[in-house]
Amino acid sequence: MPIRELEYPTEPYSTVKRLNDRASYALETIHQIVNTCPILHVSFQPSNSPFPAVLPMIGQMGSFKRPSADLDEVLDLYLHGYVSSRLMNLARTPASSGSSESNPEPGRLPITVAATHLDGLVLALTPNSHSYNYRSAVLFGHASLVTDPAEKLYAMELITESVVPGRWAHSRVPPNAAEMQSTSILRVKIATGSAKIRSGGPHDERGDLEDEEIKRKVWTGVVPVWSVLGEPVPGGYNQVAEVPEYLEGWRRHVNREAEEFAKEQVLNEGTARKKTTEE
Amino acid sequence: MPIRELEYPTEPYSTVKRLNDRASYALETIHQIVNTCPILHVSFQPSNSPFPAVLPMIGQMGSFKRPSADLDEVLDLYLHGYVSSRLMNLARTPASSGSSESNPEPGRLPITVAATHLDGLVLALTPNSHSYNYRSAVLFGHASLVTDPAEKLYAMELITESVVPGRWAHSRVPPNAAEMQSTSILRVKIATGSAKIRSGGPHDERGDLEDEEIKRKVWTGVVPVWSVLGEPVPGGYNQVAEVPEYLEGWRRHVNREAEEFAKEQVLNEGTARKKTTEE
Repeated sequence: MPIRELEYPTEPYSTVKRLNDRASYALETIHQIVNTCPILHVSFQPSNSPFPAVLPMIGQMGSFKRPSADLDEVLDLYLHGYVSSRLMNLARTPASSGSSESNPEPGRLPITVAATHLDGLVLALTPNSHSYNYRSAVLFGHASLVTDPAEKLYAMELITESVVPGRWAHSRVPPNAAEMQSTSILRVKIATGSAKIRSGGPHDERGDLEDEEIKRKVWTGVVPVWSVLGEPVPGGYNQVAEVPEYLEGWRRHVNREAEEFAKEQVLNEGTARKKTTEE
Repeated sequence: MPIRELEYPTEPYSTVKRLNDRASYALETIHQIVNTCPILHVSFQPSNSPFPAVLPMIGQMGSFKRPSADLDEVLDLYLHGYVSSRLMNLARTPASSGSSESNPEPGRLPITVAATHLDGLVLALTPNSHSYNYRSAVLFGHASLVTDPAEKLYAMELITESVVPGRWAHSRVPPNAAEMQSTSILRVKIATGSAKIRSGGPHDERGDLEDEEIKRKVWTGVVPVWSVLGEPVPGGYNQVAEVPEYLEGWRRHVNREAEEFAKEQVLNEGTARKKTTEE
C-alpha cells in the first residue's frame, strides 16, 4: 500500500478544466469507475477516416505480473475483442505493408477509453440548473495485442469474472486452441487519466432561490438511477433446473448495492470545494 | 412518411464489418437508440493531443426547421454543453488566431457520437461464447455552434424534455439572458451512422452443445439488464409536498417499459440472418 494515494499525472489533454472541483486523478477512484462499468467506449483515430472511431467494448483493469495488485496501484487495462476487428488490426504489428489502415507506430495505438455511470437526474428550479449525478472516468493510453498465451488467459478470466463473479470456474474452461486463436485481447498501457464525479442535490442560482413563487411551484430534487439485473431467463438448451447460487446471490447483492449507492449519492454532497451555481 | 425506410449511406468508416447480420443503417433504429440514451459519448481529435478526446454529454435528435419530423426522417443531433469547454471552443469559428487548439475547418469539427444500451448478460456454456444483449449506435458528423437564439431555445427545450417529459413547462422558463449566454448548444450535421443490435438467448459451438456432461453442469441463459428510476428524493429547498404526476407517472411508465423490453429481448432472436457461433 502506498503511503500517499497515487494519482495520474495531469497532462494538458487530461486535465479537467470545467467544474474542476468535481475532478479526481486518484488511481483508485478512476480504476473503480472503469471496473464497474459493463460497457466501455473506446476511441481511436483511424488514418483513413475523417472521424474518430468509437467502439463499445468490455474491459477490466488488472496486472498480469502481479494479479493481487489493488485498485489503487498501477494497472493495465485489458480489452476484449476479436482478431478481425479494425481496432485489433491497428494495434497489431503489420504482417505486411500495404494495409489500408496502417498504424504509424505498430503495436502502440493511442486510444482513449471512457467509462460513465449515471446515478441520478438532478431536477432544479430552472432547466439550466438541471444536472445528472454521475461518475465518469477517462483513460489515455497505448494499446497493443497480447501475444503471450498465459497473459491472454489471465485477461480472459479477469474479464469473464467481471461480468459474473464465479462464472469462469462454473463454465467450460479452459478455452480450446481454436478459442485461444480467435479471441484477441488488447493491453492498454495507461499514460494518464481523470475522473469527474457529481453527487448531491440540486443547486440553483440566487435569483431563483429567492423567488418564493417559483419555489412553491417547482418540485426540486433527485431521481436516483441505477442498473438492475433481472431474474435470469434460462436459454433453449439449459438443463440446470435451478439458477446457481454464485449467480443468484451475486445478482441480489449487486442490485441491493446499486440501489443503495444511487440513493446515497443524493445525500452525499461530496468533497466539492465550492458549489454555488449548477449545471 | 417515406415509402421505403430511410437508411444512412455505408461509408468505409461506418460499415459494420464483424457480425454484420446484427447491423442496421435505418435512420429510425439509430435515432431511437440515440434519443433514449441518457449519456452519449462524444469523440473528436484535438490537434494538440496524441489521444482522441471522449466526453460524456447529453444530446437529442431533432429538426429545428420541422420540429414535427419523425424519428425515421433526416434529423440533426443537438448536444448540450458550455462555452468554456474544449469541444465548444473547437467547434466555434475562432475569434482570433493563435488558439492552442485551432480547428483547421472552423465551425465544422468532425465528431463521432456513440450511444449504447445494455439489455442483458448472455451466459453460454463456455466463456468464449458469452455475450451481451445490447443496442449500440454510432453517428458521424460535423459539429458547429448554434448561434440563432430561437434554435438554441428549441434545442434546450428538446434536451430538457428528453430527461423528463413535461419538465420544461413545469420549471422556471424561459431561460434569462445570462443563461442563454452561458449555455452552448452544438448542432451536429450527420454524415452517416450505423447501429448494431444483439438480442436473444445464448449460442454455443457444436462441440459444447453435443457434450451432455457440460450441459448438465453449466446454467445457460440471460440475465436481463435495465435502468431503473428510483423514488424521487426532494432537495433541500423543495417546497412542493407531493411529487408531481408528470414526473411520477412518467417514472412508473419508463420503469415498466424498460423491464418489459429487457425481458422481451431475451426471447427476440431478431432479424439476424444466421446465428451459429456466438461472441
